[in-house]
Amino acid sequence: MTILSVPLGDRSYDVHIGTLTAEETAERLAEAMGNPSGVAVLVDEHVAEVSPRVAPLLAALAARLPCVRMFRLPRGESAKNLAAVERTCQWLAESGYDRGSVIVGVGGGAATDHAGFVAAIYLRGIAFALCPTTLLAAVDASVGGKTGVDIPAGKNLVGAFHQPCVVAADLGFLGTLPGRAIAAGMAEVVKAGLVADAELFASLEAILGPALGPERLPAAVARAVRVKIDVVSEDERERGRRAILNFGHTFGHAVEAASGYELLHGEAVSLGMLAALALGEARGVTVPGLAARTRGLLAKLGLPVDVKARVSPAVLDRMEVDKKRRSDKVRFVFVPRPGEAVLHDIPLAELKQELQSAI
Amino acid sequence: MTILSVPLGDRSYDVHIGTLTAEETAERLAEAMGNPSGVAVLVDEHVAEVSPRVAPLLAALAARLPCVRMFRLPRGESAKNLAAVERTCQWLAESGYDRGSVIVGVGGGAATDHAGFVAAIYLRGIAFALCPTTLLAAVDASVGGKTGVDIPAGKNLVGAFHQPCVVAADLGFLGTLPGRAIAAGMAEVVKAGLVADAELFASLEAILGPALGPERLPAAVARAVRVKIDVVSEDERERGRRAILNFGHTFGHAVEAASGYELLHGEAVSLGMLAALALGEARGVTVPGLAARTRGLLAKLGLPVDVKARVSPAVLDRMEVDKKRRSDKVRFVFVPRPGEAVLHDIPLAELKQELQSAI
Repeated sequence: MTILSVPLGDRSYDVHIGTLTAEETAERLAEAMGNPSGVAVLVDEHVAEVSPRVAPLLAALAARLPCVRMFRLPRGESAKNLAAVERTCQWLAESGYDRGSVIVGVGGGAATDHAGFVAAIYLRGIAFALCPTTLLAAVDASVGGKTGVDIPAGKNLVGAFHQPCVVAADLGFLGTLPGRAIAAGMAEVVKAGLVADAELFASLEAILGPALGPERLPAAVARAVRVKIDVVSEDERERGRRAILNFGHTFGHAVEAASGYELLHGEAVSLGMLAALALGEARGVTVPGLAARTRGLLAKLGLPVDVKARVSPAVLDRMEVDKKRRSDKVRFVFVPRPGEAVLHDIPLAELKQELQSAI
Repeated sequence: MTILSVPLGDRSYDVHIGTLTAEETAERLAEAMGNPSGVAVLVDEHVAEVSPRVAPLLAALAARLPCVRMFRLPRGESAKNLAAVERTCQWLAESGYDRGSVIVGVGGGAATDHAGFVAAIYLRGIAFALCPTTLLAAVDASVGGKTGVDIPAGKNLVGAFHQPCVVAADLGFLGTLPGRAIAAGMAEVVKAGLVADAELFASLEAILGPALGPERLPAAVARAVRVKIDVVSEDERERGRRAILNFGHTFGHAVEAASGYELLHGEAVSLGMLAALALGEARGVTVPGLAARTRGLLAKLGLPVDVKARVSPAVLDRMEVDKKRRSDKVRFVFVPRPGEAVLHDIPLAELKQELQSAI
């Protein structure tokens, strides 16, 4: 097991990564919670149904902590709206959870975003812990304190910065994940390498097979989480450097939305990174050939790379409501070479035009 | 005009109180906002309809700031739910308001709670300013950074702590308020005197008429706001002393809910304060006779004082979901004598029993 510490002053917390037993997970959570008045475990209903790891986790928590009860969240993205948030809050209130209670979010990124946002606003904020069950959630959603849900106008347009008290990423949960979801998670691992860890990127390129075996996955996940922690602890509220984590996300979010969310987030980020690298090469910001290398790596991991086929005026127009936009400029992330990222503010119209010709 | 400063480190802000012209209000807001990318003015639809002060305010803001647009919030309490919050956020996104934009909330406590909560969660938090238009909002809702809305299980069960960048309380807005709403606001002024300002309480007792004339009202409002600022700046997140502001609210919220919200908040607080004083006298915590004195004052102000007729097991049971409750105890506020408050943790069952016999 790897333990990474997120240094955020009096809101610092640990991230535990590895194949954890239910007892180990419960022990870590109980330690971080101190003396809660109750523990509300919010579990993605699909995870609750298919994963053999949920019941033992609940039992192990109940053996250590008071008032442990489970609430099933709507599956995946259907948890990411205010109506679902209201239902969860209603259940918390009816169940008597108070300011001394702690929420545990169990599931993928949608469940952890939902759980964190509920914790941020229920009774104006209570503590929470996260148990990510997908690769994407483990490397991305569970660290950084960004919580939130969607509104019709766009994804993650409402939310809060709220840090968990502990994250326990039991990679055993990945056993019930389809290969497509694993691949999508790997996109964020590749992103971490590209923006801040050249060695991680090189080690991924060195892999021959289509996925990391169980012996190498935990180390790669831990490295990707390390990147995120380093960036987030420098810039918790995304005022500056944290924006580099949005590499591939400006176009990625647009193509994800345009697909009607048929594309998984990681798949969209795969396309978004390739678009950003192509644009970088066209502008002379990115070292020539990096787009092709990355394309090879992403294809090998089973991720979509047909960015040319995906670009269209409709997709580019989706970038308008990107919340990173200030006024008429987009803060766009470029990777000059693996392990390095820079931010350029580009007028939206210019960006659209350049993307269309660069891709 | 009185200017009170709320000292909260880098989130400090000023509260301007008086009969302000639209130009004065707009000037204060523009100064505090700096250089926003846009200004979204959320106005209670009833205020927008009846108050002659809204149109000049919008014009004065538009003369100084970019992209000033108005959105009408559902009237009063009907703005206090997540569905209404989602509609406002949707409008903000569709209108292109971004992280550099500022929200202005114009209305009573429901509108200011709604506006502040929207500002807390839209794009994970943007800046906001408040223009309270009721006496209650001026003395209570606009200071302290508590924002939030209701869910079916109870009032204010979801929300956030989020401080405005400025508050401009133009008491000219009170001109279109019914007398009942003015009286309800006075309940919070009386509360401020009772918990922390003996002189204010004495000056209110000295008044002969049923309400404060326009020449004395601004001073009383400013004193009540001063009390709130002092307490809030000591304890922003309500971990200790801030709880004294809940004087009269434990029973008050219960009786307000039990009335189906036919009682105004201030009317319910009037009853709640009398219940708390009666309980204090029965316990020997409160100086004998203070309940009767306060009853006389509240009755003179036109507030309901028939607390005996209002208490019932159903009302007392409503205290269960009070979010100030930790585990099975209620943190109850007593006033030993005017200007002084203490907190006692009382088991809920004991509290119910004592209240029933003390009232």
